[in-house]
Amino acid sequence: MEKLLNNAFKGDPRSIGRLISLVEADTPSAKEIMKQIYPRTGKAKVIGITGSPGAGKSTFVDRLIEQFKTDNMKVGVIAIDPSSPFTGGAILGDRLRMQSHALDEGVFIRSMGSRGHLGGVSRATHEAALILDACGFDVVLIETVGVGQSEVDIIKIADTVVLVLVPGMGDDVQIMKAGIMEIADTFVVNKADKEGADKVAADVQVMLKMLKEKEWVPPVTLVSSQNNTGIEEVKNNLNEHWNFLHTSTEGKKRRFIQLEMEVEAILRGEISILTEKIWKKRKDTGILEDLASRKADPYTLAAELISQIVK
Amino acid sequence: MEKLLNNAFKGDPRSIGRLISLVEADTPSAKEIMKQIYPRTGKAKVIGITGSPGAGKSTFVDRLIEQFKTDNMKVGVIAIDPSSPFTGGAILGDRLRMQSHALDEGVFIRSMGSRGHLGGVSRATHEAALILDACGFDVVLIETVGVGQSEVDIIKIADTVVLVLVPGMGDDVQIMKAGIMEIADTFVVNKADKEGADKVAADVQVMLKMLKEKEWVPPVTLVSSQNNTGIEEVKNNLNEHWNFLHTSTEGKKRRFIQLEMEVEAILRGEISILTEKIWKKRKDTGILEDLASRKADPYTLAAELISQIVK
Repeated sequence: MEKLLNNAFKGDPRSIGRLISLVEADTPSAKEIMKQIYPRTGKAKVIGITGSPGAGKSTFVDRLIEQFKTDNMKVGVIAIDPSSPFTGGAILGDRLRMQSHALDEGVFIRSMGSRGHLGGVSRATHEAALILDACGFDVVLIETVGVGQSEVDIIKIADTVVLVLVPGMGDDVQIMKAGIMEIADTFVVNKADKEGADKVAADVQVMLKMLKEKEWVPPVTLVSSQNNTGIEEVKNNLNEHWNFLHTSTEGKKRRFIQLEMEVEAILRGEISILTEKIWKKRKDTGILEDLASRKADPYTLAAELISQIVK
Repeated sequence: MEKLLNNAFKGDPRSIGRLISLVEADTPSAKEIMKQIYPRTGKAKVIGITGSPGAGKSTFVDRLIEQFKTDNMKVGVIAIDPSSPFTGGAILGDRLRMQSHALDEGVFIRSMGSRGHLGGVSRATHEAALILDACGFDVVLIETVGVGQSEVDIIKIADTVVLVLVPGMGDDVQIMKAGIMEIADTFVVNKADKEGADKVAADVQVMLKMLKEKEWVPPVTLVSSQNNTGIEEVKNNLNEHWNFLHTSTEGKKRRFIQLEMEVEAILRGEISILTEKIWKKRKDTGILEDLASRKADPYTLAAELISQIVK
């Protein structure tokens, strides 16, 4: 374990991949790994990239990698795959996207399933980001599936959330759904070469004015991933937001909220393990029959189970 | 409280609405209410109606209400509204839909927010269904938002899941997303008067053949809510599925799995309350600063907090 960690800290991609796998599989060593990882974290810019499927997130991420590399930054990428709630695994597996960088020096790309009944950004994703951070990546890009919960969840773990929009997809659907607007720190209007891109950017500006004013005003950048324009501006915005987070009261507040959520998520996970254990035992005592026949009720049962483990 | 419950059990709509509100707001009395409610439940057919926005779920539900009413059944309806994760409340509020029945004798309609960071079908929705069940409704229809997690979550609380499809929306998108296909107990191809309805029905049949064979083979019914055709057939299918659930091994298994999930959800809720309490105290001791500076790590902290409450 010590050797694996040391090799990972030196930047060995295989060791880093192995650490992520151990944590993702929630092996017994996972917690010990994370305790060793944690003190070395907090240096990487963790950037969440969200936006509807078809918004061109992958190509944009590709360009962003290039852009950060021109500054000699090491870039880690976590691509979240949608996973079926029934099979548990990632449907798409390790995608062939972003392949132009897959073997580059200083770039690490990893696909992860969205996993779990939450359907969102899992603990494992967060922990993978922490591992990349600890292993010396300057930037960690997390590309979400772009549907459902993962879009909103990303704010729990990313320093900066980028919302990628495109013309021609109906901005009402793209922007207004599920409070995405409120969590974006910077907007990218992708495929700026296409008709309607200016209109989307203008609409975003209007909607931003409708939101409660904050210290940080999210910039809106027109980008063409294809023609590679606007990317440097996005990078500058991301760097500026990072500075904002580390110099402003609002930024500190946000980082503290994230830390709270992190502790709470770990707490919930730990306690679920405990309750699962007692529930598993109790389940085989005919209690399900009693619940089905309404001789027992789950509220009284839950109280009873909790009293068994809680002081 | 006793009086409120008794009036609700007698079918007084205002009292029923009040009970649901008390439970939805998670007031201190909520748990006591549910303990009183639970022994009276298990009689209503709880039917989840899911399908993409635009599939005509609301009109279909309207027709289904009529259909059940011809059998002198009391029908309760819970319409789940999408809610912003930030405002917490339902965006649309009490919708004006299904208004043709809103004031009918024997029909109770309630809008609820999808609420909570899970973005799915909340505990409150489940508890509202239990309340309607206990208050003498023979059928409880739960109409989901039709996007994201709520579609899949509905299987946790519904006896029967109806998937409403329509021609012209791209059946790949409609059917294949997020394992919806696997959770449907009966398929409705709505707007059967439109071109392509037969094709959608045939496609569903093909896909059903690709799934693992089960004892219950989900029927596929062509429905026109507008012309009011096919609705009786759907009702018959629903009744048949209810019988299946209560006479087959597979049905029993499913009901037991739901009971397990119910207990686990209540357990999780109770535990969050506990962890929140201890975490709240600890939070103000400068620990967030220590986490931010990486002097502390959340894994060690979680273990410490848990040791405080667990035997």
